[in-house]
Amino acid sequence: MEGKMKVAVMNGIGKMGFTEREIPQPKPDEVLVKLEYVGICGSDLHYYESGRIGDYIVEPPFVLGHEPGGTVVEVGSAVTHLKVGDRVALEPGKTCGHCEFCRTGRYNLCPDVVFFATPPVDGVFQEYVAHEAALCFKLPDNVSTLEGALIEPLAVGFHAANQGGAEAGQVAVVSGAGCIGLVSMMALRAKGVSKVYVIDIMSKRLDKALELGATGVINAAETDPVEAVKALTGGRGCDLFIETAGTEITTRQAIQIAKKGSTIVLVGYSKSGEMTLPMSLALDKELTFKTVFRYRHIYPMAIEAVAEGKVDLKGIVTDIFDFDDIQNAMDKSVSNKAEIVKAVVKIAK
Amino acid sequence: MEGKMKVAVMNGIGKMGFTEREIPQPKPDEVLVKLEYVGICGSDLHYYESGRIGDYIVEPPFVLGHEPGGTVVEVGSAVTHLKVGDRVALEPGKTCGHCEFCRTGRYNLCPDVVFFATPPVDGVFQEYVAHEAALCFKLPDNVSTLEGALIEPLAVGFHAANQGGAEAGQVAVVSGAGCIGLVSMMALRAKGVSKVYVIDIMSKRLDKALELGATGVINAAETDPVEAVKALTGGRGCDLFIETAGTEITTRQAIQIAKKGSTIVLVGYSKSGEMTLPMSLALDKELTFKTVFRYRHIYPMAIEAVAEGKVDLKGIVTDIFDFDDIQNAMDKSVSNKAEIVKAVVKIAK
Amino acid sequence: MEGKMKVAVMNGIGKMGFTEREIPQPKPDEVLVKLEYVGICGSDLHYYESGRIGDYIVEPPFVLGHEPGGTVVEVGSAVTHLKVGDRVALEPGKTCGHCEFCRTGRYNLCPDVVFFATPPVDGVFQEYVAHEAALCFKLPDNVSTLEGALIEPLAVGFHAANQGGAEAGQVAVVSGAGCIGLVSMMALRAKGVSKVYVIDIMSKRLDKALELGATGVINAAETDPVEAVKALTGGRGCDLFIETAGTEITTRQAIQIAKKGSTIVLVGYSKSGEMTLPMSLALDKELTFKTVFRYRHIYPMAIEAVAEGKVDLKGIVTDIFDFDDIQNAMDKSVSNKAEIVKAVVKIAK
Amino acid sequence: MEGKMKVAVMNGIGKMGFTEREIPQPKPDEVLVKLEYVGICGSDLHYYESGRIGDYIVEPPFVLGHEPGGTVVEVGSAVTHLKVGDRVALEPGKTCGHCEFCRTGRYNLCPDVVFFATPPVDGVFQEYVAHEAALCFKLPDNVSTLEGALIEPLAVGFHAANQGGAEAGQVAVVSGAGCIGLVSMMALRAKGVSKVYVIDIMSKRLDKALELGATGVINAAETDPVEAVKALTGGRGCDLFIETAGTEITTRQAIQIAKKGSTIVLVGYSKSGEMTLPMSLALDKELTFKTVFRYRHIYPMAIEAVAEGKVDLKGIVTDIFDFDDIQNAMDKSVSNKAEIVKAVVKIAK
Repeated sequence: MEGKMKVAVMNGIGKMGFTEREIPQPKPDEVLVKLEYVGICGSDLHYYESGRIGDYIVEPPFVLGHEPGGTVVEVGSAVTHLKVGDRVALEPGKTCGHCEFCRTGRYNLCPDVVFFATPPVDGVFQEYVAHEAALCFKLPDNVSTLEGALIEPLAVGFHAANQGGAEAGQVAVVSGAGCIGLVSMMALRAKGVSKVYVIDIMSKRLDKALELGATGVINAAETDPVEAVKALTGGRGCDLFIETAGTEITTRQAIQIAKKGSTIVLVGYSKSGEMTLPMSLALDKELTFKTVFRYRHIYPMAIEAVAEGKVDLKGIVTDIFDFDDIQNAMDKSVSNKAEIVKAVVKIAK
Repeated sequence: MEGKMKVAVMNGIGKMGFTEREIPQPKPDEVLVKLEYVGICGSDLHYYESGRIGDYIVEPPFVLGHEPGGTVVEVGSAVTHLKVGDRVALEPGKTCGHCEFCRTGRYNLCPDVVFFATPPVDGVFQEYVAHEAALCFKLPDNVSTLEGALIEPLAVGFHAANQGGAEAGQVAVVSGAGCIGLVSMMALRAKGVSKVYVIDIMSKRLDKALELGATGVINAAETDPVEAVKALTGGRGCDLFIETAGTEITTRQAIQIAKKGSTIVLVGYSKSGEMTLPMSLALDKELTFKTVFRYRHIYPMAIEAVAEGKVDLKGIVTDIFDFDDIQNAMDKSVSNKAEIVKAVVKIAK
Repeated sequence: MEGKMKVAVMNGIGKMGFTEREIPQPKPDEVLVKLEYVGICGSDLHYYESGRIGDYIVEPPFVLGHEPGGTVVEVGSAVTHLKVGDRVALEPGKTCGHCEFCRTGRYNLCPDVVFFATPPVDGVFQEYVAHEAALCFKLPDNVSTLEGALIEPLAVGFHAANQGGAEAGQVAVVSGAGCIGLVSMMALRAKGVSKVYVIDIMSKRLDKALELGATGVINAAETDPVEAVKALTGGRGCDLFIETAGTEITTRQAIQIAKKGSTIVLVGYSKSGEMTLPMSLALDKELTFKTVFRYRHIYPMAIEAVAEGKVDLKGIVTDIFDFDDIQNAMDKSVSNKAEIVKAVVKIAK
Repeated sequence: MEGKMKVAVMNGIGKMGFTEREIPQPKPDEVLVKLEYVGICGSDLHYYESGRIGDYIVEPPFVLGHEPGGTVVEVGSAVTHLKVGDRVALEPGKTCGHCEFCRTGRYNLCPDVVFFATPPVDGVFQEYVAHEAALCFKLPDNVSTLEGALIEPLAVGFHAANQGGAEAGQVAVVSGAGCIGLVSMMALRAKGVSKVYVIDIMSKRLDKALELGATGVINAAETDPVEAVKALTGGRGCDLFIETAGTEITTRQAIQIAKKGSTIVLVGYSKSGEMTLPMSLALDKELTFKTVFRYRHIYPMAIEAVAEGKVDLKGIVTDIFDFDDIQNAMDKSVSNKAEIVKAVVKIAK
């Protein structure tokens, strides 16, 4: 397909704009996807607000967005599993396939990964993208491209649940009822975990958690979560704790709430990057701490879970913005974090 | 066997004494063991110096010592696998066998464990002990009762190596070249780990580490261990880090030195119980933290490793004290931590 | 509680009778349970028909039955977690707690296990039983003692699913739609497995499978299951196969149907004890075979799954017989295997 | 490098010959390797004798040989980790890097693998080969290119040991003292397994096993291996059994010898492809069967094990043939299987 496409670019901190670029040509192993929905992630907002995350520094003009869903409009010559018209979710990271990490199945740690919207690699707030076909996963009829866009955050939730060894019969606790907390909770439920309690300090978010399937919620602004979980578990504590709030307070609570021998999964990044933690208590309990960096080989099962109705992915979306309204989308998402659990940009439909 | 036995008791902080007690009668499932060697552990010294560890408080007179080796002198009626004259290593913790933790094979976390020298349960600085026969492991001819006494700390080393998923082909780093650091290093070597580097700040301990089989050592008083390990691994970092020093500095180094996707095993307790750690870096690398509380089902394989000559357990002993000299043994061990890597009390022979 | 109780005994092959025995006194760590329902298992029928299973030989009078549910009527002095009036499911095997297998969490392999209705240990087709309290699991209000009795077979299903590494996102196949096939299917569903197909040759059983939650069924009397599964999976084969039919034909199909690198769980025993299998094909696909002997630490999570409504345990019961009618219950169960998926004896209520 | 190279080709069943081909040009991500040694594998002999293995059919002229060691003589433009003059072992299978199997770290199951000497892909009985640089592993100074060639069979041994969950403290048994049996035994020893017994019926091979580090050997022509292992283990049986002989007899023995709950690893292919096995006994013991198809991510650790002196890889070589003598090499290897444990072709030096 020849022609121009519209691309939203970050022109500086807090400044979005539009430009026009050539529609990319898919290579033999790629497909060209017409994008329909792209989610706005916390990392997009972080780049937008501060121009960097750690050593990754935005050089404007830069394209944000790495949670895409769309429809295949052109297929590379070597691609056999997709055809024009297939609706797809796009896994945003292209890996080398040959390093130690790729060869041992931990491709999310590939040092040569090329990941949408991670400087200097552009993201996908744009009309089209050419992407490795093996990273484009066909959506079944009953999964929309809006849900396709949200497979990306859901994959983080499933990876967190996997890292934690989630199992039927467990009692799990999730701290934080933002987007990642909610998808983690839903992933735990989809994996058969019996009871999943969610902790937050905003009652609106906790209502959302209940609505989407949490067994119960704890408002830490009103109740001590450590005591609350003890009461809920006959004093035993939880079998699995997924920490998505990224604060020292919630991580300390995790260590106190976790049952002996259990696992805490750390997903949330703290502001300072450092935390002071009661590690001797962790040793006394022989706890395991797992951490989460993106995800690996989750897309097919996550799509399946949505198709089966085990995960109500649409339910996390609080706001949908038009593509033309992207400046507003970014600004509102930054200014109104309490209200906007998950915003999505509608590129086309 | 009827009669009296000599028992060393802690009569208060820094005060050892002797008393006489009845020789215990073994129950049907127990054996009576005449003790020959009992190691002095850091936790014995901690109780001796401060009268407590966390919530465990010494009520004098209290018997310390939980690293025993000896010879069976009487056998309970239901015991079939041991006979009088068998030399044995004694695993010090008797567990319930029926709780959630016991039934899932993690008996070291049994809440009803009865563990030598953990208040209010007396230890074994005494001439005889009656102990559950299933916890008394027969020593082969080429393993001495001195080595039998040291199976206990070695079990911690093997459990640390197991928790870390130690494997042939890995590069491992151990911080701390005290008793637990040395047995961890030897356990790693026995499990086939290719390269094990040991970090400490005392050159005497590092010499010991080299003598006992470390691939190399790093004196952190002279060299930055992070840079040193990078140089040794072509920049990749280590596959496994076992932290036995119990300091924030070494734990921070662990996070910096560990390869992406690798595991850090925390064994050492810090003084304050708390540590401030760069957790965001841990997330970026998707690290796993495992912790160690005692050990589980290690004795048979640890004894085997000593019998095969894979672990030079005698080599860690720097000082042997007579039973009558136990006050001095405790005092020297406290005052001279730099020189005394491992002291053992010779009860009888 | 003093007095006599009614006990159903097997007096010889095909001969049931009744006798009277003393109501047992619970030991300090036991509870006395008034039994309400006891399921009839295939192994009960096997003993009833042939007087033996392998080296286990019935010496009449012998009490069959090992799937009990009832109500606590007396509590041993050391028991703290149960009280009179608690309704419980009884795990039938008492293990030593101290052997290599018990200590590594695989207590189902304990050589000293004492298991209901496994000669020479009597079972529980009787009014009362005194049983280790740690093996009596309290039922929540919404789980009946009928369901409590059926936790035993369900535990086999969950253990099979666990042995197979069942996971959300997988396609699983179960061969055999008898009691164990059905509970395996339900266990897989409860653990979040996306698609579970059931193979049998009796359409009535397959209807039951569909009714209880199978994604689809394959009547092997009409369709080649290998081709059918290929068609259902786009040629890829299944991720997990649970074989409960105990025939060479179904086990061969398992090897042909299984995806490369996948796992086959063998649960069903074949008549001759031997099978001729295409092992080279298994090597080409690098398959794993896991086997199932009873189960371990499943009861709490299985009860939880029933309480949550994830498993419709009542749905597998096709026949309930009165205690007085036990001869008929056994005879019908033997003669009418095609119709009776699961029979239960109502001892009292 | 331009010019011609000498290539040994199989011109038909039992007929070797030579031809001349262009020296290949390495692509940007490849290196050109001058081959020095190439091992003769059982599969090479199988193709040579019968023209096929299963569905893989030789179309002459075909190049056999997939166990190569050599020296890099040219480096593709994108290669950074190798330079001219580096001596390397070549992993023979190039995989897609993007399928379900590759992405989950099980690349040995990649359906699109291109593997030396597996029809229609030519092997490496030739002077030069251009190969993906990521599959060429640099040998340390103390590992020769002869050993480099033998890393391939050693990788099978390590993969078998890994599949079996080999651990320090275990008692393992290997059936078959051919090349794969010997490398499996050495891999088990390198991974710290305490005792490894080898079973065969040829005393010459058993002598070799002892020479290379087996704890003991059992000549099944003289002694019942089941009884022998029982005697060696106090009746308990072995913790791990690696079957490399590929016969029903040895596989049946494995099931009888294996301890309850233990693992049997099947490596050897049987002639007919089928085996009749006592599967009910396997269920009673709750055994696991793992199988081996080639290997995955083993080369670096296997090279390391040789460099450390843990594996005496040269010790398995019984015959070295000159390249010109390749017809004789193949014929002798076929006719004299009892004497020739491992033959290697010296291409150049």
